[in-house]
Amino acid sequence: MAHVDFWYEFASTYSYPAAMRIEALAAARSLTIGWRPFLLGPLFADFGWRDSPFNIYPVKGRYMWRDMRRICDSLDLPLSPPEPFPQNSLLAARIALALDGEARAAFSKAVYRAEFGEGATISDRATMAALLAATGADPEATLALAEQGANKDRLKAECATARSLGLPGAPCLVTPDSEVFWGNDRLEQGLDWARAARRR
Amino acid sequence: MAHVDFWYEFASTYSYPAAMRIEALAAARSLTIGWRPFLLGPLFADFGWRDSPFNIYPVKGRYMWRDMRRICDSLDLPLSPPEPFPQNSLLAARIALALDGEARAAFSKAVYRAEFGEGATISDRATMAALLAATGADPEATLALAEQGANKDRLKAECATARSLGLPGAPCLVTPDSEVFWGNDRLEQGLDWARAARRR
Repeated sequence: MAHVDFWYEFASTYSYPAAMRIEALAAARSLTIGWRPFLLGPLFADFGWRDSPFNIYPVKGRYMWRDMRRICDSLDLPLSPPEPFPQNSLLAARIALALDGEARAAFSKAVYRAEFGEGATISDRATMAALLAATGADPEATLALAEQGANKDRLKAECATARSLGLPGAPCLVTPDSEVFWGNDRLEQGLDWARAARRR
Repeated sequence: MAHVDFWYEFASTYSYPAAMRIEALAAARSLTIGWRPFLLGPLFADFGWRDSPFNIYPVKGRYMWRDMRRICDSLDLPLSPPEPFPQNSLLAARIALALDGEARAAFSKAVYRAEFGEGATISDRATMAALLAATGADPEATLALAEQGANKDRLKAECATARSLGLPGAPCLVTPDSEVFWGNDRLEQGLDWARAARRR
């Protein structure tokens, strides 16, 4: 089966519906997904941004939240914006990276549902521990692994890879032939591209 | 028939495929389209931008041009980026506003095809005159009308309306119940919304 990388940031609103949709869309095309958590902060710093563009530009923020409401309504996903927005996603990203395969996917979806579906604070260790337990992982062992230097360095390397791939934001799909598709609204197009590339 | 407003900016890349797609999509839903040319400059000035964000943020610019290439390829639309980008769109917007109904739609599509399909300079009066003639309008009379004070003021008023509607960019659809849908990739969703709203 061909493989597509799904790059996501836990603070990113549009990554929430994308994370909830990606698995069924990939399965329908016989594609496997690599879950690649990263941080937008370093990329945004390149743009001179020290905050979410949805806060820097209120017109874009108002539009985004209305757009998210329509998207979540159409998918029957709950939406309860977290306070503050954006959330500090460093801990969640480190934890996700410390997990593998199915465990990483399950934890990531649980984080998004808690953060944007229930307005939870994802920088909170107890909240993260509860989500780990709920998705079948060992909270203490995983938190310890997440905060080891090697895992922190691995997240930095992932952010460097994201920059070198030219990702303009999150979420992004990256196909085996290095095509980048940005946005929840590009999932189908990116997966179709990967399927067609496999046949070439 | 219900009506949807299509707000577009001649300098906007994604407005090009949107302008080429909107009529067939609207007709398939029995919706009429109001072609509303405007200028992004005043909105971007609110953001502190004096240039296209695709120039200010080169990562976004590189992504946009690759994305446009894929979109245009999929629609069999030619793509030849104009130099410089963005083009000065003031004259084209004034001319479009001086035309009505079908003439405005035909001229607007001709401008986009020349600008992004052939790399033409849309601030050039002779180029605009040729496009007016090619789409059945009287070039001299239309150019004279376009540059009258009343028409210039009308364009300013349209830009003020765009700001008051909270448009975050271009293109946008605005439905009769004031929902805003931003982007070429939101045309279907916006038109479906307008169709459903008509039934409510």
